[in-house]
Amino acid sequence: MSAFSESGKLWGGRFSASTDELVEEFTASVDFDKRLAACDIDGSIAHVTMLARVGTLTEAERDQIIKGLKDIGTDIARGEFAWSNALEDVHMNIEARLAERIGDVGKKLHTGRSRNDQIATDIRLYLRNEIDELTVDLDRMMTALVDVAEREADTIIPGFTHLQTAQPVSFGHHMLAWFEMLYRDRSRLVDCRRRMNVSPLGAAALAGTRFPIDRYDSAEQLGFDGICENSLDAVSDRDFAIEFSSCASLIMMHLSRMSEELVLWMSQQFGFIDIDDAFCTGSSIMPQKKNPDIPELVRGKTGRVYGDLMALLTLMKAQPLAYNRDNQEDKEPLFDAIDTVRASVKIYAALIPAITVKPDAMREAARRGLATATDLADYLVEKGIAFRDAHAIVGQIVSHALAAGKDLVDLPLAELRQYCSAIDEDIFDQLSLEASVAARRHPGGTAPDQVRAAARRARERLQNTT
Amino acid sequence: MSAFSESGKLWGGRFSASTDELVEEFTASVDFDKRLAACDIDGSIAHVTMLARVGTLTEAERDQIIKGLKDIGTDIARGEFAWSNALEDVHMNIEARLAERIGDVGKKLHTGRSRNDQIATDIRLYLRNEIDELTVDLDRMMTALVDVAEREADTIIPGFTHLQTAQPVSFGHHMLAWFEMLYRDRSRLVDCRRRMNVSPLGAAALAGTRFPIDRYDSAEQLGFDGICENSLDAVSDRDFAIEFSSCASLIMMHLSRMSEELVLWMSQQFGFIDIDDAFCTGSSIMPQKKNPDIPELVRGKTGRVYGDLMALLTLMKAQPLAYNRDNQEDKEPLFDAIDTVRASVKIYAALIPAITVKPDAMREAARRGLATATDLADYLVEKGIAFRDAHAIVGQIVSHALAAGKDLVDLPLAELRQYCSAIDEDIFDQLSLEASVAARRHPGGTAPDQVRAAARRARERLQNTT
Amino acid sequence: MSAFSESGKLWGGRFSASTDELVEEFTASVDFDKRLAACDIDGSIAHVTMLARVGTLTEAERDQIIKGLKDIGTDIARGEFAWSNALEDVHMNIEARLAERIGDVGKKLHTGRSRNDQIATDIRLYLRNEIDELTVDLDRMMTALVDVAEREADTIIPGFTHLQTAQPVSFGHHMLAWFEMLYRDRSRLVDCRRRMNVSPLGAAALAGTRFPIDRYDSAEQLGFDGICENSLDAVSDRDFAIEFSSCASLIMMHLSRMSEELVLWMSQQFGFIDIDDAFCTGSSIMPQKKNPDIPELVRGKTGRVYGDLMALLTLMKAQPLAYNRDNQEDKEPLFDAIDTVRASVKIYAALIPAITVKPDAMREAARRGLATATDLADYLVEKGIAFRDAHAIVGQIVSHALAAGKDLVDLPLAELRQYCSAIDEDIFDQLSLEASVAARRHPGGTAPDQVRAAARRARERLQNTT
Amino acid sequence: MSAFSESGKLWGGRFSASTDELVEEFTASVDFDKRLAACDIDGSIAHVTMLARVGTLTEAERDQIIKGLKDIGTDIARGEFAWSNALEDVHMNIEARLAERIGDVGKKLHTGRSRNDQIATDIRLYLRNEIDELTVDLDRMMTALVDVAEREADTIIPGFTHLQTAQPVSFGHHMLAWFEMLYRDRSRLVDCRRRMNVSPLGAAALAGTRFPIDRYDSAEQLGFDGICENSLDAVSDRDFAIEFSSCASLIMMHLSRMSEELVLWMSQQFGFIDIDDAFCTGSSIMPQKKNPDIPELVRGKTGRVYGDLMALLTLMKAQPLAYNRDNQEDKEPLFDAIDTVRASVKIYAALIPAITVKPDAMREAARRGLATATDLADYLVEKGIAFRDAHAIVGQIVSHALAAGKDLVDLPLAELRQYCSAIDEDIFDQLSLEASVAARRHPGGTAPDQVRAAARRARERLQNTT
Repeated sequence: MSAFSESGKLWGGRFSASTDELVEEFTASVDFDKRLAACDIDGSIAHVTMLARVGTLTEAERDQIIKGLKDIGTDIARGEFAWSNALEDVHMNIEARLAERIGDVGKKLHTGRSRNDQIATDIRLYLRNEIDELTVDLDRMMTALVDVAEREADTIIPGFTHLQTAQPVSFGHHMLAWFEMLYRDRSRLVDCRRRMNVSPLGAAALAGTRFPIDRYDSAEQLGFDGICENSLDAVSDRDFAIEFSSCASLIMMHLSRMSEELVLWMSQQFGFIDIDDAFCTGSSIMPQKKNPDIPELVRGKTGRVYGDLMALLTLMKAQPLAYNRDNQEDKEPLFDAIDTVRASVKIYAALIPAITVKPDAMREAARRGLATATDLADYLVEKGIAFRDAHAIVGQIVSHALAAGKDLVDLPLAELRQYCSAIDEDIFDQLSLEASVAARRHPGGTAPDQVRAAARRARERLQNTT
Repeated sequence: MSAFSESGKLWGGRFSASTDELVEEFTASVDFDKRLAACDIDGSIAHVTMLARVGTLTEAERDQIIKGLKDIGTDIARGEFAWSNALEDVHMNIEARLAERIGDVGKKLHTGRSRNDQIATDIRLYLRNEIDELTVDLDRMMTALVDVAEREADTIIPGFTHLQTAQPVSFGHHMLAWFEMLYRDRSRLVDCRRRMNVSPLGAAALAGTRFPIDRYDSAEQLGFDGICENSLDAVSDRDFAIEFSSCASLIMMHLSRMSEELVLWMSQQFGFIDIDDAFCTGSSIMPQKKNPDIPELVRGKTGRVYGDLMALLTLMKAQPLAYNRDNQEDKEPLFDAIDTVRASVKIYAALIPAITVKPDAMREAARRGLATATDLADYLVEKGIAFRDAHAIVGQIVSHALAAGKDLVDLPLAELRQYCSAIDEDIFDQLSLEASVAARRHPGGTAPDQVRAAARRARERLQNTT
Repeated sequence: MSAFSESGKLWGGRFSASTDELVEEFTASVDFDKRLAACDIDGSIAHVTMLARVGTLTEAERDQIIKGLKDIGTDIARGEFAWSNALEDVHMNIEARLAERIGDVGKKLHTGRSRNDQIATDIRLYLRNEIDELTVDLDRMMTALVDVAEREADTIIPGFTHLQTAQPVSFGHHMLAWFEMLYRDRSRLVDCRRRMNVSPLGAAALAGTRFPIDRYDSAEQLGFDGICENSLDAVSDRDFAIEFSSCASLIMMHLSRMSEELVLWMSQQFGFIDIDDAFCTGSSIMPQKKNPDIPELVRGKTGRVYGDLMALLTLMKAQPLAYNRDNQEDKEPLFDAIDTVRASVKIYAALIPAITVKPDAMREAARRGLATATDLADYLVEKGIAFRDAHAIVGQIVSHALAAGKDLVDLPLAELRQYCSAIDEDIFDQLSLEASVAARRHPGGTAPDQVRAAARRARERLQNTT
Repeated sequence: MSAFSESGKLWGGRFSASTDELVEEFTASVDFDKRLAACDIDGSIAHVTMLARVGTLTEAERDQIIKGLKDIGTDIARGEFAWSNALEDVHMNIEARLAERIGDVGKKLHTGRSRNDQIATDIRLYLRNEIDELTVDLDRMMTALVDVAEREADTIIPGFTHLQTAQPVSFGHHMLAWFEMLYRDRSRLVDCRRRMNVSPLGAAALAGTRFPIDRYDSAEQLGFDGICENSLDAVSDRDFAIEFSSCASLIMMHLSRMSEELVLWMSQQFGFIDIDDAFCTGSSIMPQKKNPDIPELVRGKTGRVYGDLMALLTLMKAQPLAYNRDNQEDKEPLFDAIDTVRASVKIYAALIPAITVKPDAMREAARRGLATATDLADYLVEKGIAFRDAHAIVGQIVSHALAAGKDLVDLPLAELRQYCSAIDEDIFDQLSLEASVAARRHPGGTAPDQVRAAARRARERLQNTT
């Protein structure tokens, strides 16, 4: 008697009609879930190893099955495996091939488990590995940022609020702001990984199994930190996919902010940086163009990951327990989020060192925007004037400077003193860009020494994270 | 001198370094935009035809280019075209091949246009065609619904609010509620198509071109109803992609509601319908299972289209004019929305006729839930009692029936009259399911005659829509 | 006997326990749905007028009810109506008050309808009115844009792609690109209004009613173009809320793009415009700041409307027919989308005329960015060189100019001719900004005459839209 | 000289025109940010305490300011504070009042800080407190679930996959699946709180300040675990709002799943539970209705929190550093997410104990759906048949039972043996619901003893979490 019914399905026993072809195409997932094949095989090996340990399989059966699975794994890795839509998914493809290769003993593989706990295991194994590799990419990108921060600690760029020149800051300081974003991202990934790293194996279809399985054994083999505590939850939970997509959305959001700034800085109007030709492209019609394509594309890809997150949240909304076929739709958004965020971080890690800073343009821009008006106000406070009064006085001086078309540092002392007699010759030291930057010398401030110290700490934090 | 620079790019003249391979992979779009190839070629043919008409090309040049393009089109259709990532996108791939095939005259194709207006034209042509095909699929599904509505006009099912039995309704009436949803969807698609069917060709990179083009000529050749009125807008507008995704989201939302109901109705608890085996699958572990996979999958795919919509809205947020590379990211979400909604409607059009109704189970469910309590209240109003008072009286009768474990129609007249002496023997006619349904005989009501009339009108509306 | 049960609810007859206070607070909607009061009263008046016409109410009853409703409407308009959470929603508050004011006849108001068709009617009436007012605001904003377009048709600004200087364009042309976005928005609103303007009244709870109602009569009284064709659909349909939110999202997306450009243009780096002080604010700490707050806030509000859209799509996902209490959650997102988009368009209509253009800065920026390189290539094409070759030649000239730190127009003829002997003295006319702009003189192009013609057409289109 | 300029603004010095009223209304945030008042005052007190400690303020100044702030705090708590739109936001309202109350010394409060670090501090303090209270509510709900789980460990309900009867499970087991969801939610909140609990104070506008502040001092006073490491990041970071909204979205998603099940279980078709009248409402037209309003409303509110998340993600997309006015729009979505999730969890904690289980209906449903077919297959495996073969055999028996209209346990042994001679009399013990449930006795399985053990562990886990 054949293990597979006439319809060729592993579950066909009760069915009378064969599955419509349109339906087959609509329901098959093998096109996208085959990327789980290696994880699926790892999970199966752990499962049969455990089954043999508890006596449900003999050691000989176990060895036959494991050998069969490994051979199939090799075929897949070599691209020599013929995937079949009719066999629906990665699990059925592998299991059917196993039965072909090793005969009846292959039919024992699925003892004490179900595709429901199997797929939940596969995705967790796959995602865990992707998180680990993404973390490495993030570390590389953060290191690149710290390198620039140290190199450019003394480079002055105008800091903006409302895209208006606000106060001069160290360019290195700006790079470390980017570092902080990514460092939080990394920390979120670590939390996500910890929370998801428990084994659903043994939950079977939804209720557990009557076979005398040892869930801790298979969990340990697969590197899980523990087991899912409830079988219904184990097969229906997709929190990890959502949590990861949320982490990925935050990463993309951060990269989109960096992208926006790079695009601005590379415009003719800002002219603060150049990006190596290798990361730019031109125009099919305008011969003079050099476009910051990478930052633009990364910024554009942000929405796609937001969309993946929204897809997954919508997917899970109001689903009754336990497993529903809806959940087949968890994979493509998750995979897309993984692929997009990994490619984006990777290319950014390569791009950061390819940025050339144009310190003269930055400096000139900072000089022009009355960027040290706050320093003038603070100076007045130090002379004993209440901050709100100082702010109002400087507001009037700024109006005067704008009308006169002059920068603060260019106003003669006499003119300044018309607004406040507390202003003295020593003011001019404080209104220079360097003095302004150097004065913000507390932790987290933009003084070059602080930036260098922060860069050192950043390097240590990277080394100390696991 | 070669038309293509050393770096192999069409825009490479000003560039000194060659593009990094990682960058090439990250920026190439040919993998997904090659599905625009046929539209791209149609657009190019219209463009050169127009260029010849205004004298910018000779007729011989035009004919050479058109022949070259058609040959390439044939190669692509046959799967014999070698796509190259290094050539970035569908446009460059085709144009480079054209130059190879027909020599220098091929380099004249791009006169008076840019990839910016070219891609905008391609997507519109592609989407227009997809809308047309989707409309046909929707019509097929709507026809299937009208068929069932006519067949089951007299079949009674409990109508639910809050998933509690509310009032008996005709099953055909329920099918026509689904029809109305899709009919609105269809009408939205028609509006979307009309609004998008204008030609961006001639906008060139962003400002128009100095060549003496005739934009109306190329627009007419391509079946556009008019031209984009402003060149900056023409190359930067992606409203149509968002509007279509919004239409697609509404369709999926509607299908998800139908799916939810089919899943409910096919549960052992409801048992209202069966779905043909061809549209169901089984379980790898539980031999008794027959699962409504198609409705579940369609319900699951809803989030994916919502995600595509969100991706596109996010993409366009705060983009300055005119074209930015971000916009390369418009295609995959749009294509995914198109593919998903088309496959879902198509399979639903096939599934609707495969639904078997179980009228006994429906009837029994309607009978049990005190579904005609409203009819009793209405009866009292007809006897001269104010509606609010009638509602309160029936509330007490319902409490009594619940306590006694009886249905309304089973309470003896004497018991009913304890609550209101206006109740007479004629009440029992009105409390039957058939009487309740038949009494709602105004347009839009659930009386079987109204359902049949509505079905007739629905068929006419389908025939009269263009 | 009282119309209202002990628990004070209109539906309390069957209930034994009183509603928990926490529950009351959680479920009450009157806080936000009271803004529907005027529409609710209009709907009720139309309903009783119809009931009298078909003989279900006497004329005297009708008149009493109408007078009572109008008095309540006056109280509400004056802010003298005491809303009660215990009465749940706007309908119950008004109906309970009516019974208090006019006695038992008030209890007849709810004959032949349900809160389900009542709320569906209310929201449609409310939204219809808001769309009409929004359309007026959009028209005002579009008129402001056309005014600027005409005034600044000859003002030259650099057109950007990838935020890199691309080609010079007319500032008026840029304003008309904004006009086109809004014009599509307006057209979408008109479609949305047309599709939603049908009456749900008469659908009652879900199945219609046994009273001999005339749905066309009440529909006509309320200005509807027709009736909802199916009662189940009528009470469960919220497409209009989603469609409107989608229209609103597109409007906000467009405003966010304009905002982005205004913020850029007002930065010290661009310096292309100024915005009147009345629309800007300062900094609590930096006295020199003048911030473009309105554009920033509008850009920030974009996400909120996207969120409203997503909320509504999620709300409706997989809801079985007919009405579920979930739908109470349709109102706040819809109202928020309405309020946000209306406030944003209104303030933008006021802000557009408050923009001051700085033509010198724009001109200088256009001059610097090699913006006429395309014109040089086109010139070569006119001399008989294939476009791709011309593009390559100009690419080399651009490299030379960049290395020499010169603009194209500043290169001596001899140097130009080193790259291509076809270049003659007449090139210098074509490389001027004015010549470049004027040369794009086809419909939709940026030539000032075309801009003026387009502005005239825009004005006509505004006048001809209904 | 007045601290406030003629326009009444704290930043008005440089401005010539007064702010338009429409603008004032559009830009004011005090309507919604006044809920931060207590946190704002706490932050200010910590700031001046620190300023006195480092010598920037005298102790007398500090005491005057603190007294003034506390008095204002009391006024606000009592509802006696007159908020002013003209003063824009909560900060300006309080600071202006302070200057009124205590005179010129009040103008020194803003020394060494900016509204940018101030608002960042306020939101963190506010959100931190809300997370703490939400955690308490979650704990209460989880405890309620564990109570039910212990009480109903032996109650059998059909477990569903694809909403088809799958296998019998313990109702207590099902409750513990819900527990697991919430426990992960709680753990995510703890991570979010830890990550956000660092102080932005001292970042000032964006660059830090020249005053000799001690950031660790004010951080410690406010209960922060550390300081934001970078001033630019400190004022522009809104990760915490997004991360919280993501946690809230997951909670709502979980609650929506529970809601879906409660609504199903309370339908006439399932009839598995009843919910206390206090948590239900009726119909204005159908007297027999008792609706599960709370679960429906919670399910409906899910989309709203998803929308808040999407709003915040969109808000932050592509914002250049540092602070932009867009960020004013962070508060309403965040507050809405907080309010919605807190109200939903709170009412669910009250509702869980108000659920009455109907064990007979559950049992009967489990008995009918051939729910023990898997047990029959497992039985065959124990008899030495490979699982896939066993699955196929049982599939045929199921077909036979369906055709005969019998349950598995009702088939005579002889009929069973026609399909497989390995079946013996002992099979009937294994096909009972109790035997099926009891057999799944590994950790995480549904055996009642396992459920009781899991409930005990759950209680311990709750006690051990901080």
